[in-house]
Amino acid sequence: MSKFIVGVDVGGTSVKIGTFDLNGKIIEKWEIPTVGKTVLPDVAASIKAHFNEEHPEADCTGIGIDVPGPVKDGGIVLECVNLGWAMTDVKGKMEELTGIKTLVVNDANAAALGEAWQGGGMDSDSMVMITLGTGVGGGVIVDGKVVEGATGAGGEIGHILVEPAETVNCNCGKKGCLEQYASATGIVRLAKKGLATGKYTSLLSDIDDFSAKDVLDAAKKSDPLGEWVLDRAGYYLAIACSHIAQTIDPAVFVIGGGVSKAGPVLLTAITKYYDSFVMNSLRGKEFRLASLGNDAGIYGAAALWVRK
Amino acid sequence: MSKFIVGVDVGGTSVKIGTFDLNGKIIEKWEIPTVGKTVLPDVAASIKAHFNEEHPEADCTGIGIDVPGPVKDGGIVLECVNLGWAMTDVKGKMEELTGIKTLVVNDANAAALGEAWQGGGMDSDSMVMITLGTGVGGGVIVDGKVVEGATGAGGEIGHILVEPAETVNCNCGKKGCLEQYASATGIVRLAKKGLATGKYTSLLSDIDDFSAKDVLDAAKKSDPLGEWVLDRAGYYLAIACSHIAQTIDPAVFVIGGGVSKAGPVLLTAITKYYDSFVMNSLRGKEFRLASLGNDAGIYGAAALWVRK
Repeated sequence: MSKFIVGVDVGGTSVKIGTFDLNGKIIEKWEIPTVGKTVLPDVAASIKAHFNEEHPEADCTGIGIDVPGPVKDGGIVLECVNLGWAMTDVKGKMEELTGIKTLVVNDANAAALGEAWQGGGMDSDSMVMITLGTGVGGGVIVDGKVVEGATGAGGEIGHILVEPAETVNCNCGKKGCLEQYASATGIVRLAKKGLATGKYTSLLSDIDDFSAKDVLDAAKKSDPLGEWVLDRAGYYLAIACSHIAQTIDPAVFVIGGGVSKAGPVLLTAITKYYDSFVMNSLRGKEFRLASLGNDAGIYGAAALWVRK
Repeated sequence: MSKFIVGVDVGGTSVKIGTFDLNGKIIEKWEIPTVGKTVLPDVAASIKAHFNEEHPEADCTGIGIDVPGPVKDGGIVLECVNLGWAMTDVKGKMEELTGIKTLVVNDANAAALGEAWQGGGMDSDSMVMITLGTGVGGGVIVDGKVVEGATGAGGEIGHILVEPAETVNCNCGKKGCLEQYASATGIVRLAKKGLATGKYTSLLSDIDDFSAKDVLDAAKKSDPLGEWVLDRAGYYLAIACSHIAQTIDPAVFVIGGGVSKAGPVLLTAITKYYDSFVMNSLRGKEFRLASLGNDAGIYGAAALWVRK
């Protein structure tokens, strides 16, 4: 019998739950469907049902839970648009439902904590995770702790201004955000823009409704348009990373999310430009790919109990 | 008899020393000349000579000392160009010389800590200090602690890239750094550049060798060139602050250094642009002027003992 932690990752369609030993080794993981109104009671019941002789409730150090919204004051969630939640005391409710101490974290920050604990940022207490999905999310870790920020907007890397000359609006209402160039949506947008110029021949001109994966696959086949888009995404990521490095000088950048499945070519596109944007002592910084995939959240939520 | 702390600020020409009670009230302050080779023995002797009946050595909680160079591993100074020091174990030497526990910090970070403790950033555990002097320095404080960074380059805000179109080199070898527009040197440079365009009539055209103060004084008198330079400095400061805010979301920005003596007009020049560069939840951030002047360093060095 040994101590263990429960990590919970609340997503829009399903909730992932995992149990971990204190060294970060996963014991068991499972999923339940997300039902907005009853998600916390459902999660509590599911956790209780998974306690067993080998891992009894008495050995549970605590529950860590991540939610897709800003978290304040150690457990109050201000809003979860995707779950239809207004302000909710997630920590209080989970502790009431389970009788087990609970810690709460935002989902982008959980992914960063997870990668820092057992993934691409392992062996580093100072890292920045950039998640390139439909949008661009981020998590900043300093001294092993997530930087939540005064208004819960720490690590909002996707909305760093990287192109003052942009004329099209980002979802956030500003113009020239990193997200407009390096998210899956941004990559498709850039490719369409490049195609419209008529400057590039491309495999993509034969595909009606191409995806970011199609664009990056084309780049790997030396498709001129694909290569141009990858170069631009790398350039803007390098600019954003240079700003982050000049501010907090992390030991490592970890790149995750669906777009990062492109692999090492993405890191090469960033490092091609990064050194020229930072001062001497910040050059040669390490860029790594995330390694926990969709499990980063449960790792990170559990990590709240070992990295406090 | 009550506990007190000694704060030491080692500058290129003089060393400032102050004693503080644990609430941050200054008890006494004095200066000694900086003599590169004997500075630590000189400081140690001076501190010992200032112990007295009311503030005896036995009541000294510790010494905090700041130095103009990168500090690693809790007290090793890698290099102090201005003092002619190679790598020096400042913590070890001071403890050997005084028999009193010593903590060491970089001078830009000390200024930030000082302002966070008793100055413009007071009552905030999360602030960024930007020092506009000959160059532009910075200090980032998260959860009451300085972010030193993996290579000691945390808070190197002066070298954030803010103008990709710049053609002139910064001292650091890059192009388009904040320092090239918002330092005293940068402000004079911008004014000369503006003057050379012939687009602006200006009081400054009558002064042979004008200073940043002359430029900012002219701006306050509605001098067209002065106003243009102040506007540009504010614009580039706002860009850099937007990048910092998107990364760590501090509660407050504190602007210090010689250039900040221009006063509230400088803050207005920044806030004119800042909100348009950040996402919604980061708008309306507080910008304040530093308030400790040249004493920020001794406050910050002493603060190492209360904000650990």
